[in-house]
Amino acid sequence: MPHDPSKHLVYINGELFPPDEAKISVFDSAVMLGDTVTESTRTFRHRPFKLDQHLDRLYKSLKVTRIDPGLSQAEMKELTLRVLQANLPHVPPDEDVWIVHNISRGRSVAGADPTKQRSQATVIAFTQPMILTDWARFYTEGCHAVTPMSRAVPPQSLDARIKNRSRMAYTLAEMEVKLVDPQAQGILLDLDGNVAENKGGNFFIVSEGVLKTPSTRSALAGISRATALELAAGLGIPAQVVDFQLYDIYTADEAFFTSTPYCIMPATRINGLPVSDGRVGGVTRRLLAAWSDLVGMDIAGQALRQLAAVETAQSLHPSNHTKKHTDG
Amino acid sequence: MPHDPSKHLVYINGELFPPDEAKISVFDSAVMLGDTVTESTRTFRHRPFKLDQHLDRLYKSLKVTRIDPGLSQAEMKELTLRVLQANLPHVPPDEDVWIVHNISRGRSVAGADPTKQRSQATVIAFTQPMILTDWARFYTEGCHAVTPMSRAVPPQSLDARIKNRSRMAYTLAEMEVKLVDPQAQGILLDLDGNVAENKGGNFFIVSEGVLKTPSTRSALAGISRATALELAAGLGIPAQVVDFQLYDIYTADEAFFTSTPYCIMPATRINGLPVSDGRVGGVTRRLLAAWSDLVGMDIAGQALRQLAAVETAQSLHPSNHTKKHTDG
Amino acid sequence: MPHDPSKHLVYINGELFPPDEAKISVFDSAVMLGDTVTESTRTFRHRPFKLDQHLDRLYKSLKVTRIDPGLSQAEMKELTLRVLQANLPHVPPDEDVWIVHNISRGRSVAGADPTKQRSQATVIAFTQPMILTDWARFYTEGCHAVTPMSRAVPPQSLDARIKNRSRMAYTLAEMEVKLVDPQAQGILLDLDGNVAENKGGNFFIVSEGVLKTPSTRSALAGISRATALELAAGLGIPAQVVDFQLYDIYTADEAFFTSTPYCIMPATRINGLPVSDGRVGGVTRRLLAAWSDLVGMDIAGQALRQLAAVETAQSLHPSNHTKKHTDG
Amino acid sequence: MPHDPSKHLVYINGELFPPDEAKISVFDSAVMLGDTVTESTRTFRHRPFKLDQHLDRLYKSLKVTRIDPGLSQAEMKELTLRVLQANLPHVPPDEDVWIVHNISRGRSVAGADPTKQRSQATVIAFTQPMILTDWARFYTEGCHAVTPMSRAVPPQSLDARIKNRSRMAYTLAEMEVKLVDPQAQGILLDLDGNVAENKGGNFFIVSEGVLKTPSTRSALAGISRATALELAAGLGIPAQVVDFQLYDIYTADEAFFTSTPYCIMPATRINGLPVSDGRVGGVTRRLLAAWSDLVGMDIAGQALRQLAAVETAQSLHPSNHTKKHTDG
Amino acid sequence: MPHDPSKHLVYINGELFPPDEAKISVFDSAVMLGDTVTESTRTFRHRPFKLDQHLDRLYKSLKVTRIDPGLSQAEMKELTLRVLQANLPHVPPDEDVWIVHNISRGRSVAGADPTKQRSQATVIAFTQPMILTDWARFYTEGCHAVTPMSRAVPPQSLDARIKNRSRMAYTLAEMEVKLVDPQAQGILLDLDGNVAENKGGNFFIVSEGVLKTPSTRSALAGISRATALELAAGLGIPAQVVDFQLYDIYTADEAFFTSTPYCIMPATRINGLPVSDGRVGGVTRRLLAAWSDLVGMDIAGQALRQLAAVETAQSLHPSNHTKKHTDG
Amino acid sequence: MPHDPSKHLVYINGELFPPDEAKISVFDSAVMLGDTVTESTRTFRHRPFKLDQHLDRLYKSLKVTRIDPGLSQAEMKELTLRVLQANLPHVPPDEDVWIVHNISRGRSVAGADPTKQRSQATVIAFTQPMILTDWARFYTEGCHAVTPMSRAVPPQSLDARIKNRSRMAYTLAEMEVKLVDPQAQGILLDLDGNVAENKGGNFFIVSEGVLKTPSTRSALAGISRATALELAAGLGIPAQVVDFQLYDIYTADEAFFTSTPYCIMPATRINGLPVSDGRVGGVTRRLLAAWSDLVGMDIAGQALRQLAAVETAQSLHPSNHTKKHTDG
Repeated sequence: MPHDPSKHLVYINGELFPPDEAKISVFDSAVMLGDTVTESTRTFRHRPFKLDQHLDRLYKSLKVTRIDPGLSQAEMKELTLRVLQANLPHVPPDEDVWIVHNISRGRSVAGADPTKQRSQATVIAFTQPMILTDWARFYTEGCHAVTPMSRAVPPQSLDARIKNRSRMAYTLAEMEVKLVDPQAQGILLDLDGNVAENKGGNFFIVSEGVLKTPSTRSALAGISRATALELAAGLGIPAQVVDFQLYDIYTADEAFFTSTPYCIMPATRINGLPVSDGRVGGVTRRLLAAWSDLVGMDIAGQALRQLAAVETAQSLHPSNHTKKHTDG
Repeated sequence: MPHDPSKHLVYINGELFPPDEAKISVFDSAVMLGDTVTESTRTFRHRPFKLDQHLDRLYKSLKVTRIDPGLSQAEMKELTLRVLQANLPHVPPDEDVWIVHNISRGRSVAGADPTKQRSQATVIAFTQPMILTDWARFYTEGCHAVTPMSRAVPPQSLDARIKNRSRMAYTLAEMEVKLVDPQAQGILLDLDGNVAENKGGNFFIVSEGVLKTPSTRSALAGISRATALELAAGLGIPAQVVDFQLYDIYTADEAFFTSTPYCIMPATRINGLPVSDGRVGGVTRRLLAAWSDLVGMDIAGQALRQLAAVETAQSLHPSNHTKKHTDG
Repeated sequence: MPHDPSKHLVYINGELFPPDEAKISVFDSAVMLGDTVTESTRTFRHRPFKLDQHLDRLYKSLKVTRIDPGLSQAEMKELTLRVLQANLPHVPPDEDVWIVHNISRGRSVAGADPTKQRSQATVIAFTQPMILTDWARFYTEGCHAVTPMSRAVPPQSLDARIKNRSRMAYTLAEMEVKLVDPQAQGILLDLDGNVAENKGGNFFIVSEGVLKTPSTRSALAGISRATALELAAGLGIPAQVVDFQLYDIYTADEAFFTSTPYCIMPATRINGLPVSDGRVGGVTRRLLAAWSDLVGMDIAGQALRQLAAVETAQSLHPSNHTKKHTDG
Repeated sequence: MPHDPSKHLVYINGELFPPDEAKISVFDSAVMLGDTVTESTRTFRHRPFKLDQHLDRLYKSLKVTRIDPGLSQAEMKELTLRVLQANLPHVPPDEDVWIVHNISRGRSVAGADPTKQRSQATVIAFTQPMILTDWARFYTEGCHAVTPMSRAVPPQSLDARIKNRSRMAYTLAEMEVKLVDPQAQGILLDLDGNVAENKGGNFFIVSEGVLKTPSTRSALAGISRATALELAAGLGIPAQVVDFQLYDIYTADEAFFTSTPYCIMPATRINGLPVSDGRVGGVTRRLLAAWSDLVGMDIAGQALRQLAAVETAQSLHPSNHTKKHTDG
Repeated sequence: MPHDPSKHLVYINGELFPPDEAKISVFDSAVMLGDTVTESTRTFRHRPFKLDQHLDRLYKSLKVTRIDPGLSQAEMKELTLRVLQANLPHVPPDEDVWIVHNISRGRSVAGADPTKQRSQATVIAFTQPMILTDWARFYTEGCHAVTPMSRAVPPQSLDARIKNRSRMAYTLAEMEVKLVDPQAQGILLDLDGNVAENKGGNFFIVSEGVLKTPSTRSALAGISRATALELAAGLGIPAQVVDFQLYDIYTADEAFFTSTPYCIMPATRINGLPVSDGRVGGVTRRLLAAWSDLVGMDIAGQALRQLAAVETAQSLHPSNHTKKHTDG
Repeated sequence: MPHDPSKHLVYINGELFPPDEAKISVFDSAVMLGDTVTESTRTFRHRPFKLDQHLDRLYKSLKVTRIDPGLSQAEMKELTLRVLQANLPHVPPDEDVWIVHNISRGRSVAGADPTKQRSQATVIAFTQPMILTDWARFYTEGCHAVTPMSRAVPPQSLDARIKNRSRMAYTLAEMEVKLVDPQAQGILLDLDGNVAENKGGNFFIVSEGVLKTPSTRSALAGISRATALELAAGLGIPAQVVDFQLYDIYTADEAFFTSTPYCIMPATRINGLPVSDGRVGGVTRRLLAAWSDLVGMDIAGQALRQLAAVETAQSLHPSNHTKKHTDG
């Protein structure tokens, strides 16, 4: 059974729409101001992972941005599960999905005070196939981590823990990263040169047996980050939340990113230099294995199966090789 | 003839839509990433003001964000005028309009590299009635300028001159301003405590006869700002582009904001203190008068007429008093 | 027995004066340069609380500012207790007092090197009624914490741990706070946007069961802060000294200030948003109860009794309602 | 006629007192909080120099600190001249005086909101002999300028242009300067390493014929600074207000301080290195000569006469050699 | 006549050595501490260009670093010209040379106070063939300017105007630049994100007809920079010394570097984007032409001739193609 | 047996040279760019201390600077021991030596890309007598620690953990320290005013029984620092790696430096103030004793013996009193 994204219905303010009809007004504050908070949860074996934690964080983002969603957290959870249930029948058994929430302040009016919520919030929730092909090889080879020229937005300008859709700074920084290597994954530094975060994930190193990740001063309080720390505790791997700099990555024994879709993505190069011997490290592999255990499935295996399928399809239909992601 | 916004058609990628049908996909990068550059031009007497300068700046924003709009600047101008022509018949002779451009990188795909433009850009252009009622009283009384607790995003994170729709930092800062006074207008400081800009405009003071405005290090290169400087030159008012701090505003002789809709908005209070004697100053009035001359209409007069009309309407229908902006 | 402040004698360089006659030269460096270090100790049940710790800190301030007080720490303690003994007979049994030390570098000479101590230091010690009426309601309702626009003086300009009387930066920042709410209590941020301190106290949050307070990098090493941490240890409440930002307060479960007069003051609002459900939290209440146990009296009760007395008096003599503090 | 400072009466809130009786309450906010704004004007030939500019600045300081002095600027000028007239008869014809204003927020109450002015402001005005002996040699030899380890308080903490008496940061920095050389005069750098100001004056260099002084971002808007710039303009010496760093001083052709008492004080050494050839430079001398012309007296000559008198006295009474300033 | 570098004698503390024998002790502070100041002057038509200005700057560097060279500036000039005269006979008529000065504090002793100069300074002066082949194409095509991830050393750590040989920060930053493009030329940003300088040159943009270059706050006071400004003045091209940021380069009309060997090197790409239309601009070409006029030779022509010669040689002996610079 | 340094052979790229003949080309990147990484190891009782850790760090420095030494770490160790064995016969039994490695990128070419390694690296290894006379008295009296005006190079400019020979910033800062006291030892602050490091060592304080040292954000990851922490752990002395400021040193109970030659150097004064009672503290003494135990010799004793010998020699030959270090 192929995974057909066109079957995934999209919830918008109480109604379900096919993806092609899932639209919002160009006057919505989501479009006019990027005034949207968001969460992305994934499923493992069709079950949402840590949905409550994602919704807790969503309601923190709503509070800090002073958006009134018009729904209690319980109602939000209920509708989320409803959307998921509606769409899961279209998901092959060995595939999974994103569950995405986008909540904007609703209608915006040109020239009017943007801090006033003038209408019902725009509540969007949808699922999408969890396509991991871009990252699949990194589970075994590791990715190339690169630091951009730009610096993370500081917390006194906009706190990185507000998970939001005003992402232009992140997108432009990632473009700088791609100048070095089109496959590279970015690590933003903060204004003081401390390691901050990836545009959509957190960063860890392992040095002399200790797992280290920056504080949330300039980084999302990632749920995958928390999971990695919990798994490390379970495995008896000592961990520190501590500021570190590029030198620490250059001289680390291991390095990896965490994020909702891929969970743990090893980094085996940093700004053109190998991390240690340039191979995926033991702590990284143990953490990923523990995560697979936790969710009852082979996380990397799922990604690699997807990649193999795409490559098989491409060898049959070579002209479609850029299609991987355009059907998302 | 009342000004009916429902008649203003919206251009989206080659087609015109009534405003209620002007929608974009929830998967557009405008929604998913705030990945949109923008311009807002206004008309005076139905003629667009400095449209070429606005389009020059739009194409700078497109270049720096590496969005390919799929249209040359000449084509963009042509379609802009087409939209304006389509909508002007619905605009009363003494009213004017915003002309708004929003251009996003197009379709976004969850989990895929956001720096790759995967589709045609989403090009949106529309007009809206230029409603000035919220600001009208400030022309005569001056507004209350307030500095938020947060600080402007620094240029090494995201340059303020890229006119974009990832505005959450600005919106949250403006909310802090409204804690002091719901009618206040914000002045962001930069990380060093220098005056930066308003969420949608620039800021000027007059001290001992000299007009001063901050550099564009942390401020939009406002076209209204440039106009104010040009008018000052024409009037023989000396002007400086120079860093200044809150102390300078507290001790200034005059202060005002510039922005596309209101052109010049006097500020007569700053963080609860009067600016000078708390009245609109002479240089400010001369600049506004010169601007009115330049465009051949009474800029403040238009706003005050709108306000009078709303107040008359409200005195007749008191329950509608919050309606001013909800029909924008 | 009413508490008559006019009976509290003031020690100045070896002599005791009635408060109305307690004066120093306008040429004193205290007046000319704010060149004064200070301590404020309070009594509980007429016994000074942690006087030795306050004097230790006073002598640290004297050392760092290179003021020679002309008295050993033991002599300073002896005279302090002498002043207290002289004044306690005038203190009602259920009331308490401040014990204040102010020590300046002595005489200042216009135009001369201010770093040279040209005379005996000016040593001032006095008691004052401990009037808690302004804070009394906050024990049950919590206060509104607000961050000013200004930023804390950084340690490489003047270390916040030198407890001194050059307080203009704090006073002006607190004025900004009062623009938001005349009853609000300020939380200064440092130049990096980290939470620093209140003008006269420290700040704590409780998040997921952990008590957190900033380091002393930009905050007084408060003796009440230390007491709160000791009480937490005694109660088995985990605590961290750690940098945090506004986001942490917005999303905290509880928040409170510590300072000598009120010990613990719950904060239930932050910049207009409720802290958690807007009510005083359990950890806060346990710490305050433990502090009351430690000192053998109901700390909040004393304050609320004072407030009730003032309100009774005001209901009898309504014209005196601003008098609460003018007799201090 | 010797200059007897004990004859100089001191104005405090409407009354005149002999200096020994000129005292304020230890509860005044001047003592309790350093909450005092100030000006120091000097006379030349018994006439106050730029008194109106000093009072303009005083009223700016009052405004920004939100202290209500209870007197209009005209009334303040009137009382100032009254104090001066009362004291001038005791001033020898070839001597001059400081005119000092200190205005505090009045009575402070321990534990009460310090931002509320609870009483009449405390308005102090007095004169003092203008004793220049400490600086006299510097007119001919130049002084040794030294930068402290500490950094100037940044404007977002407390603007240096508010001329105030919370000077502890300045005093401690000057003590660091004296570690290098007990006669050295300090030059504070700001947090970015730019030259800021002296504890009570401004700093200038001359490089390739151009006079340069830092902006007022981290420096008092000195009236002597303005005078130096005016004199330079009159002499055709080009001048720039521009940021510079220590390197610029090390490689300058000339350097000097400006301040009310000494007007211009040449600096011929900087952190142990000579400025140029280590002698007072030509531009400096021209500016000082022009200032002497402006005020109709030999500024350096007055100081050198004082020094000669002291030295003569000391050679007669060698045990009194530290007395120069203790009678101020 | 081929240009044989082995004939260029090297001056070391009074003696001349063939290059292969030009050595210094491994205990010299040049090696042990990078404690060396330096200048690089070039000839045009065998005549040194602005040698006096280079020596002025050298003596400023010596002063600020407190190195005693043991020679007056006149003596240094005399020996420089002597070295040049000795080596010029070996320079083909259409070729030119670098004249390099390196002056270290002399012998260093492990564990001893490095600030004491324990011996005669080590004075090195030599010439080298001016090989421009690496840059030759950039005169016509422009180079690719790239900003590294690292930031310029701030002036309060080490002033960029001290021309010195402790260059590791520059070398590592340039390595980051080469990650983007092995031919790219770096533009360091300062800690605030302002454009600073190239590792060995200055940077200019042309925007709307105005030539702009950053201040020397974080940049060498380049003699080529000064020359470019002088030439611009002569041509009537308005110029500003002003802070700018990456956005200014992205949206500039022209951009170029200045440095001693190449004088002016056009930059036609910046971080992967074209500068304007990606071609060398008119102002740049006019300045380079004026410089050629000033020195009486075709600056770009010399470089292009060298390149043509190398390419001819390589086409004859293809295995030597990396040799261009290894014989320098 | 006197310790004759002229017998210590120097290894340069495979050959051994007497010290007077140990030279490198003036064109080496060590001289031209300070492009050298380094280690200094010492012996105790003729055995190298923690040589493997020094080589580990050396190879980290090589990696981060992208210098290819052309030797594996094992080969580097082997040659190091060979040099040591060659030279130890000339070392008196109660004396020890430095083992110094300097590795540069090799030949540099003026005007060519300095990031390309064009030749074999220059590998230098030598021994030198461990002369401790300058520090000997500090073991018993403590030294005077002073903070310079300059600030440590921040990690986003050049990470202090790369042990390198581009030391000009450190040398100039130490010169500022010597302005206060020619015997003082410097403590660099970072840009935020946190304590960073000494030019060649780390810094510790003891406060209320806890040993504290800054993180490696702006400090070398000292092997002596690690040793001190290990010894503290062995002695049950609690230790923290934590940011602190000057105030912490002023109010500390003890303070000391760590570095390879002297191991632990007590600091008993800080910027002119005594640390505690101005005597070497108990924790410091215990750590130094433990270190002596660890290496089987009296560390301070060795230094004091050297000093006594020098003083005896000087009393016999008073004209040689500056010779202590000039024979290194």
